[in-house]
Amino acid sequence: MTFTLAWLAERVRQVMPCTVVGDASTPVERVEHPAAPSLGGALAPCFDADAIAQAVAGGASALLVDGRADLPPGVAALTAERPRTALGLLLTAFDGVAPPDGVDPTARIAPDARVDPTASVGAFAVVGTGASIGARSRIAPHVVIERGASMGADCRLGPASVLGWGCSLGDGVILQAHATVGADGFSYDTAAPSNVDVARGLAAEAVLQPWVRIPSRGTVELGDGVEIGAGACIDRPTLGVSRIGAGTKIDNLVQIAHHVEIGEHCLLAAQTGVAGSCVIEDGAVLGGQAGIVDHQRVGRLAVVLGGADVHSDIPPGEVVAGAPARPRREWFKRLAAAGRLERVRRRLRSIEDRIAALEEDA
Amino acid sequence: MTFTLAWLAERVRQVMPCTVVGDASTPVERVEHPAAPSLGGALAPCFDADAIAQAVAGGASALLVDGRADLPPGVAALTAERPRTALGLLLTAFDGVAPPDGVDPTARIAPDARVDPTASVGAFAVVGTGASIGARSRIAPHVVIERGASMGADCRLGPASVLGWGCSLGDGVILQAHATVGADGFSYDTAAPSNVDVARGLAAEAVLQPWVRIPSRGTVELGDGVEIGAGACIDRPTLGVSRIGAGTKIDNLVQIAHHVEIGEHCLLAAQTGVAGSCVIEDGAVLGGQAGIVDHQRVGRLAVVLGGADVHSDIPPGEVVAGAPARPRREWFKRLAAAGRLERVRRRLRSIEDRIAALEEDA
Amino acid sequence: MTFTLAWLAERVRQVMPCTVVGDASTPVERVEHPAAPSLGGALAPCFDADAIAQAVAGGASALLVDGRADLPPGVAALTAERPRTALGLLLTAFDGVAPPDGVDPTARIAPDARVDPTASVGAFAVVGTGASIGARSRIAPHVVIERGASMGADCRLGPASVLGWGCSLGDGVILQAHATVGADGFSYDTAAPSNVDVARGLAAEAVLQPWVRIPSRGTVELGDGVEIGAGACIDRPTLGVSRIGAGTKIDNLVQIAHHVEIGEHCLLAAQTGVAGSCVIEDGAVLGGQAGIVDHQRVGRLAVVLGGADVHSDIPPGEVVAGAPARPRREWFKRLAAAGRLERVRRRLRSIEDRIAALEEDA
Repeated sequence: MTFTLAWLAERVRQVMPCTVVGDASTPVERVEHPAAPSLGGALAPCFDADAIAQAVAGGASALLVDGRADLPPGVAALTAERPRTALGLLLTAFDGVAPPDGVDPTARIAPDARVDPTASVGAFAVVGTGASIGARSRIAPHVVIERGASMGADCRLGPASVLGWGCSLGDGVILQAHATVGADGFSYDTAAPSNVDVARGLAAEAVLQPWVRIPSRGTVELGDGVEIGAGACIDRPTLGVSRIGAGTKIDNLVQIAHHVEIGEHCLLAAQTGVAGSCVIEDGAVLGGQAGIVDHQRVGRLAVVLGGADVHSDIPPGEVVAGAPARPRREWFKRLAAAGRLERVRRRLRSIEDRIAALEEDA
Repeated sequence: MTFTLAWLAERVRQVMPCTVVGDASTPVERVEHPAAPSLGGALAPCFDADAIAQAVAGGASALLVDGRADLPPGVAALTAERPRTALGLLLTAFDGVAPPDGVDPTARIAPDARVDPTASVGAFAVVGTGASIGARSRIAPHVVIERGASMGADCRLGPASVLGWGCSLGDGVILQAHATVGADGFSYDTAAPSNVDVARGLAAEAVLQPWVRIPSRGTVELGDGVEIGAGACIDRPTLGVSRIGAGTKIDNLVQIAHHVEIGEHCLLAAQTGVAGSCVIEDGAVLGGQAGIVDHQRVGRLAVVLGGADVHSDIPPGEVVAGAPARPRREWFKRLAAAGRLERVRRRLRSIEDRIAALEEDA
Repeated sequence: MTFTLAWLAERVRQVMPCTVVGDASTPVERVEHPAAPSLGGALAPCFDADAIAQAVAGGASALLVDGRADLPPGVAALTAERPRTALGLLLTAFDGVAPPDGVDPTARIAPDARVDPTASVGAFAVVGTGASIGARSRIAPHVVIERGASMGADCRLGPASVLGWGCSLGDGVILQAHATVGADGFSYDTAAPSNVDVARGLAAEAVLQPWVRIPSRGTVELGDGVEIGAGACIDRPTLGVSRIGAGTKIDNLVQIAHHVEIGEHCLLAAQTGVAGSCVIEDGAVLGGQAGIVDHQRVGRLAVVLGGADVHSDIPPGEVVAGAPARPRREWFKRLAAAGRLERVRRRLRSIEDRIAALEEDA
């Protein structure tokens, strides 16, 4: 595939302003790292001056830079205010539409499963009874799609990912390798007060007793364009449906417990855990290794910084940090105050000395 | 399957008191969420007044409520003090006994493996030489059971779970999708002092040197009724056997390192990590994302709240929180004190002013 | 396999000093835990006096102890300053060279893939077009090796591990079960300022907008002797190559984001997360559940203690702890100071009383 710089600029302009510098008819065959061994025919994204120098020296056909970049004369380039976003659009343009691989003869597909003729199914994939796979969706080798599960068009399920019975994916959903959608919720309770009740202040003491399993009979629905990272786990609820809204992106090794509801266009970074019955509103961002205790609500467009432990509802738009999480400004203040403790003790000592002197005089 | 309310009440009574309200002969076909589109014939669990109103309006045949619930006249219901636990028992009652799926023709079973005739083995599952599978156990597609591994009756191994060589499961054990039992322990040491020794105060400095691998030749035994969550990892020890006691439940993405011993009826929530050679005593509860450093002991019925980092032994029955973990009451006190630091500084300033005034007068 | 104690001592001496106590011609057939039911013919590692007593009572043929151990007369033993390391060497000696299992007939190997005749490929493994597998490498059942991926000699890929397209492993690399090398990076950006920008102080407010995906087209290279734990995830970069240096060991459920560079002989314990574009220099050690925010550098031979959250560069050789991470000594001081806050308040109250008395007198 070869595109002109003008055509690529148009592609970026569908999302944000983009300017062509130099010859708009420059042909571009591919996108390469500015340090790649061969850059002829390539567009190289350059996010700093060193990268620009490197790409120009390497003979890149064109650059992608931000609007403030200082370009040597004669260089062809695209400029965009958010060049990383533009890079995403360009790489996607070069992806094109791969021809379907078809259905591998080793795939085990139930006779009543519906597989669109344009879909691909990899080696040893299992598609259960009543399951359905939409147009152009690509199922990697070793994927397990259980009975009654379904997905729309243009989904991509990575190697060894699991889509549990009755769960459904919208269009354009991505599951990375080893993702699990629809594992049983971790739902246990006891017949008499337990030490969990003691910890919550609901009982004075506990005895050793068996945990009674509350089976998970609900399902999970992922909206259009959702991505689930490698090894991430999305649990199914006891009854009913748990939903993750369109456009929400979830990173590797994230845990979403049972009865969690997640809105649209959220971002959950790696290793974050959301405990049972939480609500994550539209556009919320959770940094890596964040933890949300059960039954909390993270407000629309709120940000939970990496590593924070959320023990209470977070208002819309708030940025929180720390354990337990509090507004970032307050968290910074507390950190600073903790760093001044030694000084507090010095001041106390000096004050005590001065008082003693005054008392002696009195 | 249809049961009368009276029969279901009896089922709950095997574990805790349960009362029938209204017509005990009411037939119940299934359990549904109170918001389900169709509730005729269904029992709906209702944990608050809104849910009761919703279920009654939806025409539920019966409700499950706690003893204090206010029920409209004429409604049939079960009341139990711990209705979530009762829900678990009811859902389990409706599970019934599914007929075995048998052994999928694509499963690869070693000639000398023992598979009970009532067990099921899914597509592409691998059962190694000398392995054994007990009565009614259900092996999902893509499970790998290595040589010499064994399990009792009524186990359920989720898709793509791995049971390592020589490891054994009791009766009724559940592995969720992608669980790994019997990965090698992460056991490395060096020939001369390393920076780990420096960090432990055992050496003054370190040089760069290779890590020597200590192979893992031991096995793992899980007692009856143990559950291991999706993507969770249970490592095998260098030598000997690591045990997880009967009735212990482990959530998704939990890491259990080598040489850890876990008692009975413990609960380990998602993403918790237990480092090497720890002991978790009977009935202990570890909240999500908790971390236990190596060689610590968590006492019987102790509770480690979510996100806590345990750096020392926890006495039986203690509830701890924070990083490093300390008794919860002390942790709350410290948090409150940290919040008053600003006030301390204001008081210091005022005191210093007053002293200066006194000194001037003196 | 039977070795004399003298031969085994020689093996240990290739790495560190090792002494034979008693009869150097003692034959040793295997290594056993000192509590094993039968110790005849076995060497037992004994790291304390109880273990020595147990092993001697059990009839162990030889012990492995440290230089300070008190041995009963007549006992044959190896002594080494770092007996755990010596144990690793001995266990490896007994591993010997297993005969190759060959290629399972169910494995699905692309016609143009290169599989060394001495390599093993397990049931249902998938080897993509253009992939290559070096001498004596062992591919477990259900492994997926995508197109163009390659590995050297003596690698070991655990059940259901995934080696992504174009990624490469050196010699002697180990992937544990469910490890993923080469998942897509979690790389998203927006067309206009987002709440991530707000959190970084780069924008005043955000609106709800879709995330633009930046596809991952780069690859991952693991050096000789690297180990990746069960369920761990190593992401591929947008463009170019991400490298993990020779001898680096990574534990279960670790997350390595896109564009991370890791040096040689590092150790990353379980559930640690390294965010995008970080650099981990040679010999660095990261404890369990540590988190490194994006774009940070952890210096050569630095140690990040378990649970620490690194928000800034760590100098070479530094030992850090806490959240946010700071030098361990400073962290301990702050913890101690926080514990004395109550006392500060008592002193303030006493000072205020004394000043009031003085003011009354004045």
